[in-house]
Amino acid sequence: MFRQTAVLLALFVAGTSTSYAGSQPDDQGAREVQTAIEAANARFSEAFARGDAKALASMYTSDAIVFPPDSEMIRGNEAIGDFWKATRNGGVRDVALTTVEVGQSGDVAYEVGKVSLTVQAHGNEPTAAGAKYVVVWKRQADGSWKLHRDIWNSLPARK
Amino acid sequence: MFRQTAVLLALFVAGTSTSYAGSQPDDQGAREVQTAIEAANARFSEAFARGDAKALASMYTSDAIVFPPDSEMIRGNEAIGDFWKATRNGGVRDVALTTVEVGQSGDVAYEVGKVSLTVQAHGNEPTAAGAKYVVVWKRQADGSWKLHRDIWNSLPARK
Repeated sequence: MFRQTAVLLALFVAGTSTSYAGSQPDDQGAREVQTAIEAANARFSEAFARGDAKALASMYTSDAIVFPPDSEMIRGNEAIGDFWKATRNGGVRDVALTTVEVGQSGDVAYEVGKVSLTVQAHGNEPTAAGAKYVVVWKRQADGSWKLHRDIWNSLPARK
Repeated sequence: MFRQTAVLLALFVAGTSTSYAGSQPDDQGAREVQTAIEAANARFSEAFARGDAKALASMYTSDAIVFPPDSEMIRGNEAIGDFWKATRNGGVRDVALTTVEVGQSGDVAYEVGKVSLTVQAHGNEPTAAGAKYVVVWKRQADGSWKLHRDIWNSLPARK
């Protein structure tokens, strides 16, 4: 757990939450996909707050991969659910995802976003942190979208 | 330039080049896309070795985004070419890209890969380093593929 927390602290260095003009979906289809992704991200934040590994795992494809910094790839939605639960138990709180852009082609979409969170480890004061990410989403047979590839890294340390 | 180098050293901590069974493209179309991407990656490595910002820029879409760790997003292919040239001039050498997997849907493809490189800064001994990445590629009107979203982070430090 110490290593988990240390890794997170290294990744999620205090970041700015700079806003800027992201590109917008250029058609109705992409807007609908973005709405679905934003709803999924809200569910992700709720499941993360509960430490609900099963709910988190269910949001990923069975052969999903996440790419935590300073780590090997983590493969498979059950391992990914466990990873997020361990991350939460290591002191990460208030994970808020902001979608910057969504592009879509058929059953594949890619999302660019930013995440803000607080880290509180070992009884220290909570610290704000931020990262940026790219997620590849895959549309499922039932029309829902699941995370398929999920990679992020830190924003610059706040001055 | 010092900050550039410091950032790279922080990112590209000495990494393993563990091989593993990546998923393979499951149809002829995806295999052809993977072949095109691997050829583009070889050209990237050559252009990087030359410090050829213009050639590097031409491999990205005009509205491409790269996501360097500990940095804000870098937008636009000219700024991206300059970023890679500065990275090379900061002491990064021998950048070798290995494609682990390619998925495709229409004019969008996503690539998972690993990069190995050496870092030699301030006259020190060269150090091997590694990272993992996800690239979203976009097929152009002429049938070629260009990098559109490009994000990476470090592999674990070598034990």
